[in-house]
Amino acid sequence: MQRKIDITELVLRDAHQSLLATRMALEDMVPACEDIDAAGFWSVECWGGATFDSCIRFLNEDPWERLRTFRRLMPNSRLQMLLRGQNLLGYRHYEDTVVDKFVEKAAENGMDVFRTFDALNDVRNVERAIAAVKRVDKHAQGTICYTISPLHTVEGYVKMARDLMDLGCDSLCIKDMAALLKPQPAYDIVKAIKEELGQDVRIHVHCHSTTGVTLVSLMKAIEAGADAVDSAISSLSLGPGHNPTESLVEMLENTGYTTDLDDDRLTRIRDHFATIRPKYSHFMSSITGVETEIFKSQIPGGMITNMEDQLRQQGAGDKRKEVMEEVPRVRKAAGYPPLVTPSSQIVGTQAVFNVLMGEYKVLTAEFADLMLGYYGETIGERDAKVIAQAEAQTKKGPITVRPADLLTPEWEELCTQAQALEGFDGSDEDVLTHAMFPKVASGFLKARADGPQSVAKDPNEVAAATGGSSGADHVRTPIKYQVTVNGTSHDVSVAPA
Amino acid sequence: MQRKIDITELVLRDAHQSLLATRMALEDMVPACEDIDAAGFWSVECWGGATFDSCIRFLNEDPWERLRTFRRLMPNSRLQMLLRGQNLLGYRHYEDTVVDKFVEKAAENGMDVFRTFDALNDVRNVERAIAAVKRVDKHAQGTICYTISPLHTVEGYVKMARDLMDLGCDSLCIKDMAALLKPQPAYDIVKAIKEELGQDVRIHVHCHSTTGVTLVSLMKAIEAGADAVDSAISSLSLGPGHNPTESLVEMLENTGYTTDLDDDRLTRIRDHFATIRPKYSHFMSSITGVETEIFKSQIPGGMITNMEDQLRQQGAGDKRKEVMEEVPRVRKAAGYPPLVTPSSQIVGTQAVFNVLMGEYKVLTAEFADLMLGYYGETIGERDAKVIAQAEAQTKKGPITVRPADLLTPEWEELCTQAQALEGFDGSDEDVLTHAMFPKVASGFLKARADGPQSVAKDPNEVAAATGGSSGADHVRTPIKYQVTVNGTSHDVSVAPA
Repeated sequence: MQRKIDITELVLRDAHQSLLATRMALEDMVPACEDIDAAGFWSVECWGGATFDSCIRFLNEDPWERLRTFRRLMPNSRLQMLLRGQNLLGYRHYEDTVVDKFVEKAAENGMDVFRTFDALNDVRNVERAIAAVKRVDKHAQGTICYTISPLHTVEGYVKMARDLMDLGCDSLCIKDMAALLKPQPAYDIVKAIKEELGQDVRIHVHCHSTTGVTLVSLMKAIEAGADAVDSAISSLSLGPGHNPTESLVEMLENTGYTTDLDDDRLTRIRDHFATIRPKYSHFMSSITGVETEIFKSQIPGGMITNMEDQLRQQGAGDKRKEVMEEVPRVRKAAGYPPLVTPSSQIVGTQAVFNVLMGEYKVLTAEFADLMLGYYGETIGERDAKVIAQAEAQTKKGPITVRPADLLTPEWEELCTQAQALEGFDGSDEDVLTHAMFPKVASGFLKARADGPQSVAKDPNEVAAATGGSSGADHVRTPIKYQVTVNGTSHDVSVAPA
Repeated sequence: MQRKIDITELVLRDAHQSLLATRMALEDMVPACEDIDAAGFWSVECWGGATFDSCIRFLNEDPWERLRTFRRLMPNSRLQMLLRGQNLLGYRHYEDTVVDKFVEKAAENGMDVFRTFDALNDVRNVERAIAAVKRVDKHAQGTICYTISPLHTVEGYVKMARDLMDLGCDSLCIKDMAALLKPQPAYDIVKAIKEELGQDVRIHVHCHSTTGVTLVSLMKAIEAGADAVDSAISSLSLGPGHNPTESLVEMLENTGYTTDLDDDRLTRIRDHFATIRPKYSHFMSSITGVETEIFKSQIPGGMITNMEDQLRQQGAGDKRKEVMEEVPRVRKAAGYPPLVTPSSQIVGTQAVFNVLMGEYKVLTAEFADLMLGYYGETIGERDAKVIAQAEAQTKKGPITVRPADLLTPEWEELCTQAQALEGFDGSDEDVLTHAMFPKVASGFLKARADGPQSVAKDPNEVAAATGGSSGADHVRTPIKYQVTVNGTSHDVSVAPA
């Protein structure tokens, strides 16, 4: 008697977000939807903050239309999204009625499962979103962002799990965005939650594969009782992405567990994305192997890249090591937040500031807000001296209430703002698009009628541009040369004949 | 109380064999040897048939000198090699005294651990080599080639383990060259061997990472009692290679197992090979992700590539599917040999012949020999009709004795042959080099005095040739264009300004 392990397929959201800079166009997903719908996944993750942002910023695609398309093409599947709690899909706290409206509209357009997290693991920041999901009768999944610090313990995670379940969550997710979850803690946390809260508490485990060790962690989580794990079809897996769906299936063969996924469907999905991936190779993550250094620095890969960019822009590329050593100190001063959007950027940038300008000589606005509680509570006490400095610099006092409690109703104002935008179609969806990404939405609404603009390249062109053969194939756009014709030198612009 | 898991580091042999077509030059290994020697590995695999072949075929390096260099640079390490049983490092059966001489000379030049396998798992074919290793007081490791078939069972593997231990082996290796070993059988086989033969029987597990699932298999093997596992430093790992050493270390954290490897040394080894790898990118395996299709076809990746080449050469590239379906039938007719060098090539080529010319209309000489027992015994009965055909075609009878029993002493003759070669230095080592690869050795001995010829490329050149940035950087040599200047067309040669 085998226990069935449910699988969430990530290829339509986190996989291409992690591997192809979130650039995949809907048209490249559509041909796979029928197979995805029939393969037997528990859910299909297909929507989130970065995909929404990318739709309107890079692809001139209406993210709501994308969602409706998924709904139409995958009628038998649970569609799943990643929701940043009170931040929804954006980077600030929204007032509660906006949260309600967003969830309502997402559900109306086809969303089934709302995986809801807060970057600080402050449960108050997911409370409203979860209540909203329950109100529209959808699946509310409460999320624990997994991280490592002297204060993070199995007991602490169990407590957070209990708090989330007390909110009425239908399931829990252990979210390991940096691939830090090793096999033993994966086992211990799942086991402890099940033992403390009951075997019928549904636990999903989401791991990235960056460190090369997390397929083993998924195995251990399953042995400890996890109900579901996430994976991505092999042709869009590994590196900073996720463990391959097919490997997961094979891993469980003849164990006490099974996935019951349809092999032939998986093969077709794999073959499809194998042809799509090269079209986006110009966006491909340069990391393809494993990055085990993360275990030592505990700094996620994407965050290191960001900090390096900042240092280079300041002409301080040689300060990398100091910054890497400063990050853990800043994180400690901030009360050991998990390092995930946006806390990873906030901590990383402050570490850069500290190294370049002296310790806490200048605080970024965001770091000051973090220290003063405007993002929520952290697990550890925050450094009193730095808090005092944040107060002095911002002329704001620290808070301990739920940050969104300080906000006043803003839906009407968002509607008014949206109405002023060219191309606004009068829908609540458009208001929400504006609310999420105000700077980008105006341009998108104006250009929307032009239709989707894929940023993919012809795979043959890509192959020619990166392939081994030399010669004219490499030249894609006019290039200026010094060309000598019949002994006379000319400045010429050249394109393939 | 943690149990220590011993690690064999593969970077100097199988890792670059699997990922860089065995092309790495000694000079690119030397700078890492001090760290490898001090990192705490149980052994360092650094020699085998393909590296020996590559040394004399491509790198103008004396493989014996390479071995002596390793011995000198890694005085604290067990040096390990992969030995093809009675085939030694070549592709045919050698007469017993040649086997003795080879082992003796390898030991004399510094080898400690002889991992000895036979492609058919015919224990008679490793018997002599293992006795020779014992005679020179070195570590004899008997190897089970892991494969899957209706006849391969846990009990069968236990029986083979017993046969190997009865030969006096110091340890056993479960060798999973095609990454087919899933977690459950890994657990079951190790567990059963330990239970049947005793907990003190040392078991090493060697897995490739091709299918993405074998790090979990190593975990399960360890849980079942495996004493040692193989891995490769992360910067030369994964794909058709092996699981990353650092991931393995991290995997075991806080479990009941530990590796006791030196993290700082690992980091330095990793960094070194991260700089070396790009120099060989032109030899790099095109497979970087996972290949789970192998589970279905049970045809190792390298074998598929070979067959595709053969089909293309015959203008029959469209027959791939038929050949893939023919392979399991041919394998069955041949008594279910494991598919590993040379059985994989023999079975694959016959499958191509069958598809192109009709079933067993023509047998390759090697396949006929395989059917007639000249490679040894197979686990399953071989197809009587095909055996009859092999007899008719070759005018040879089938044999059941150990193939090498039919050979007459050949050492003197090999010496005579070697003496006739230009550049022969009179050593037994040179005779053995000639014996292993007679066609290649003559050219090598002649050119040896020129010294090593690396086939690596300058990493900057490689980066420039394959890099992402557009424009003139791509153009390395003058290119001919049709260029229109002021409305007039010219044939022009163009070089970067």
